[in-house]
Amino acid sequence: MSKFWSPFVKDLVPYVPGEQPKLAKLVKLNTNENPYGPSPKALAAMQAELNDSLRLYPDPNGERLKNAVAEYYDVQANQVFVGNGSDEVLAHIFHGLFQHDKALLFPDITYSFYPVYCGLYGIDFQTVALDEEFQIRVADYARPNGGIIFPNPNAPTGRVLALEAIEQILQASPDSVVVVDEAYIDFGGQSAVALVERYPNLLVTQTLSKSRSLAGMRVGLAIGSAELIEALERIKNSFNSYPLDRLAIVGAAAAFEDREYFETCREKVISSREHLISELSGLGFDILPSAANFIFARHPLKDAAELAVGLRQQGVIVRHFKQARIEQFLRISIGTPEQNQALVDALREL
Amino acid sequence: MSKFWSPFVKDLVPYVPGEQPKLAKLVKLNTNENPYGPSPKALAAMQAELNDSLRLYPDPNGERLKNAVAEYYDVQANQVFVGNGSDEVLAHIFHGLFQHDKALLFPDITYSFYPVYCGLYGIDFQTVALDEEFQIRVADYARPNGGIIFPNPNAPTGRVLALEAIEQILQASPDSVVVVDEAYIDFGGQSAVALVERYPNLLVTQTLSKSRSLAGMRVGLAIGSAELIEALERIKNSFNSYPLDRLAIVGAAAAFEDREYFETCREKVISSREHLISELSGLGFDILPSAANFIFARHPLKDAAELAVGLRQQGVIVRHFKQARIEQFLRISIGTPEQNQALVDALREL
Repeated sequence: MSKFWSPFVKDLVPYVPGEQPKLAKLVKLNTNENPYGPSPKALAAMQAELNDSLRLYPDPNGERLKNAVAEYYDVQANQVFVGNGSDEVLAHIFHGLFQHDKALLFPDITYSFYPVYCGLYGIDFQTVALDEEFQIRVADYARPNGGIIFPNPNAPTGRVLALEAIEQILQASPDSVVVVDEAYIDFGGQSAVALVERYPNLLVTQTLSKSRSLAGMRVGLAIGSAELIEALERIKNSFNSYPLDRLAIVGAAAAFEDREYFETCREKVISSREHLISELSGLGFDILPSAANFIFARHPLKDAAELAVGLRQQGVIVRHFKQARIEQFLRISIGTPEQNQALVDALREL
Repeated sequence: MSKFWSPFVKDLVPYVPGEQPKLAKLVKLNTNENPYGPSPKALAAMQAELNDSLRLYPDPNGERLKNAVAEYYDVQANQVFVGNGSDEVLAHIFHGLFQHDKALLFPDITYSFYPVYCGLYGIDFQTVALDEEFQIRVADYARPNGGIIFPNPNAPTGRVLALEAIEQILQASPDSVVVVDEAYIDFGGQSAVALVERYPNLLVTQTLSKSRSLAGMRVGLAIGSAELIEALERIKNSFNSYPLDRLAIVGAAAAFEDREYFETCREKVISSREHLISELSGLGFDILPSAANFIFARHPLKDAAELAVGLRQQGVIVRHFKQARIEQFLRISIGTPEQNQALVDALREL
């Protein structure tokens, strides 16, 4: 280790994102992007801002976006926090709300960035095993903790938890912050934002990268009580006054305002998902029930790592995690009908 | 304080950025933006990327931008770090390179975000007084320390340090990281990037928000030895895989590539600065020598806070800091000739 580094840096185990290949020809089903582009209204809003005004700093508070989100979810603007992708929002949450004496809890199979944040901020954590069907067991979270976080639907399983189950978790830990990471909520789950008024310990995070097709613009958000949001604002204002650029603010706001386009896209993705599940079942795959824009599938006879390599050789990339319990699964993003067909065709060859 | 907050959050004293007014009519000379828009080539590059490809994540490594910066400064791409504005880059530097047993050193009059970062990451610091002419006294930094940071030119004074003086600081603290924050370097200083090959403890930060007119896009960078850059990459990859969006990456790269436009703009700003200094001197102001795109001025007979209020009433906003030693100064960004004239006219009325 370098003598110049802060001591903790040598122990960091950074997150490894899915590949962003430089070859445009690949069928890219590895990072859960939306197969459809952003709302034309979002593109138009960014277009209108793409001029000399970029010499000026953005609104440090991102008010236009906060107002659009507040209106969409019928909450107050001071219950909304916005950041440079939900990964940045999550980082501030770990920093500002999870540094407590007791251990943070999250599932053993989940978004693999969570333990990385714990390393970054020196947070003690315990993982809680999913059941044999890869579902969250609510009762297992009813124990002393310094916070709870889980995605809903969970990643990379795609399994969703009902709001009643989330309420049980919230009620069992009234003194802890419970974060529901809703990156994939729009593809089949019910948002826990509906519970925010009743649970001051609930924080919901979302991203514009999936259901609103703006992964390239880096916008995420959190919704919760003003008390929780204030902690995030204090962190943000001690870290970077202007996390969202001028184009991201107006593009994200317009994406939230264009409900019709949003509904059309997510319905297409959901419909494609159901069709793909049926096709892959026909090829002998076992597929977990999915409420996300991806599926988690294994084949009883074929090795997942070999399948991933074989698909890549045919120009289709999916994600494979070398991790206990899930090493025989592939996580496959839902593409256009043509992309999904290319995947099915490639799998037939393997 | 909320029981939900991490304990340190209650003690945070966030940074307060200059106002971003909603009235477009104001003559805005308060946040050191460039009065001229971004390079037309930067706008064209962003335009070419403003399409359905925004559904895809950006390159997490921002290679296109790193290569453009490396070429501009004749360094290797692995000596370049890029982030979401230089404020984010600085945050990662404080986190990853300044958490040591000994105190961090920086000037008593300097960028007021530095002590905020120290609060965020629990870093002990000592301020080192500028001399009576508001210059950095190099000898005062030759003492035990856990790191050194200063802007060059310094903010909000505008005074610049020669490379020989910076070398003395580097040589006196070979075991410490010395960060030269060059937000304003292009308006009159010599970049310390020229010293990077010889000093493994040197890290230089820059921003695209000033001389390259892209404050609205949030892009900053650091240049130093691969050893220092690696610490920042480890932090970044444990915080947010994709800090720069697709438009920011291509716009910033194109701005670095368009040397001619850059040279023209900075020469216009420098020329306007010298003219403004002459005008304000004529009105009786004392002005510190400036190598930046702002000046730091006081009037021997007029109270600075009152002047700032009076200017605001006439539609001109400048920055005033309520801080010991500089409370009688105004920091005035260099605008277009017309904006500068509006300032001079308004001051004549006060």
